[in-house]
Amino acid sequence: MRIAELSRETGVPVPTIKFYLREGVLPAGERTSKNQARYDESHIRRLRLIRAMVDLGGLSLASVREIVAAIDDQESDDDQLMGRVSKSLIPEVDAVDDASLAAVEAVLAELGWEDACSHPSARTLAAVLAAGRELGHDFAPTFVAHGRACEEVARADLDYVEGKDVDQMLESVIVGTLLGDTALAALRRIAQTVESHRRYGVDEDE
Amino acid sequence: MRIAELSRETGVPVPTIKFYLREGVLPAGERTSKNQARYDESHIRRLRLIRAMVDLGGLSLASVREIVAAIDDQESDDDQLMGRVSKSLIPEVDAVDDASLAAVEAVLAELGWEDACSHPSARTLAAVLAAGRELGHDFAPTFVAHGRACEEVARADLDYVEGKDVDQMLESVIVGTLLGDTALAALRRIAQTVESHRRYGVDEDE
Repeated sequence: MRIAELSRETGVPVPTIKFYLREGVLPAGERTSKNQARYDESHIRRLRLIRAMVDLGGLSLASVREIVAAIDDQESDDDQLMGRVSKSLIPEVDAVDDASLAAVEAVLAELGWEDACSHPSARTLAAVLAAGRELGHDFAPTFVAHGRACEEVARADLDYVEGKDVDQMLESVIVGTLLGDTALAALRRIAQTVESHRRYGVDEDE
Repeated sequence: MRIAELSRETGVPVPTIKFYLREGVLPAGERTSKNQARYDESHIRRLRLIRAMVDLGGLSLASVREIVAAIDDQESDDDQLMGRVSKSLIPEVDAVDDASLAAVEAVLAELGWEDACSHPSARTLAAVLAAGRELGHDFAPTFVAHGRACEEVARADLDYVEGKDVDQMLESVIVGTLLGDTALAALRRIAQTVESHRRYGVDEDE
């Protein structure tokens, strides 16, 4: 297809597509004349992936470039890409104190996740724990319960991407993780209300 | 205690405390002279609550005022405040299409959460479902699995606040929910990596 059709298919404006081509995050099409190129399904998938990262994830072009490079590099062992990409979707965390990191390591050990101590999200957890402590809360026991629940979440996440090809799988991981964070927070709030009703009865204004 | 000590205890600058007093979200202290007032533990707790809402939740002063008014009103049936406050911690969602709302209702029915169809988070879920569909994904089955996991999350959340007094409980709900969203997303990523290793083996770079 020509660039105009690629734009219609994906909803991405032509100038934006040209920008992605120049930046090298979208591979060039097959040149058919001096001023024209032909694009295929792989360009549609790649554009959807880029859109997901930029629109849903708010990722910078530099991060997009990094992830795209990882995809193009690693055709060989795509089975582990899930874990890798999910790591790259994590915001950077500033310095974290050793006591909080040690507390998170204890949580991970209790969950049987000792291998995950070097995971960037362990630092995020330590930062949350530190912020909670500053406000007089110890969330470590809650982390253990939430971690157990997340084993179920992660099984569903991996089931969802199983059997897809690498581009599709990555797009699924990125879309599923970024949109999924919002969905998970929403489901948590509904579950809190449901559980609150179970324990204490129904609000009279409902 | 005097306002300077209240500031030291909470880390909130004196001018900010005066602003909260003027805005009526922090109750006045007991006046001891023309220019001085005395504050107590309840002011510390309330300031921590306000800080949690503003710093962690990014809530507007108007939202803070609303929640604070709800607390001051509802001393009587604080058992249901958990569900109510968790509802108020939800970002507004634009118009959602009927098909997505119907799909979310089916998900909630499958979870046995029929009563929750009017919960504001149901609209958030519908928006996520619609965004996913636009990118070629159907997340409804994943929502069911994630919803089951969130029952466990919510039980831990409610266990955490059980037996606290109303100010403490609300502060716990707000801090726990807002910080908890970040923690839950982090735990999910770690669980994805752990589950990915279980299924596909360990990355060679670790």
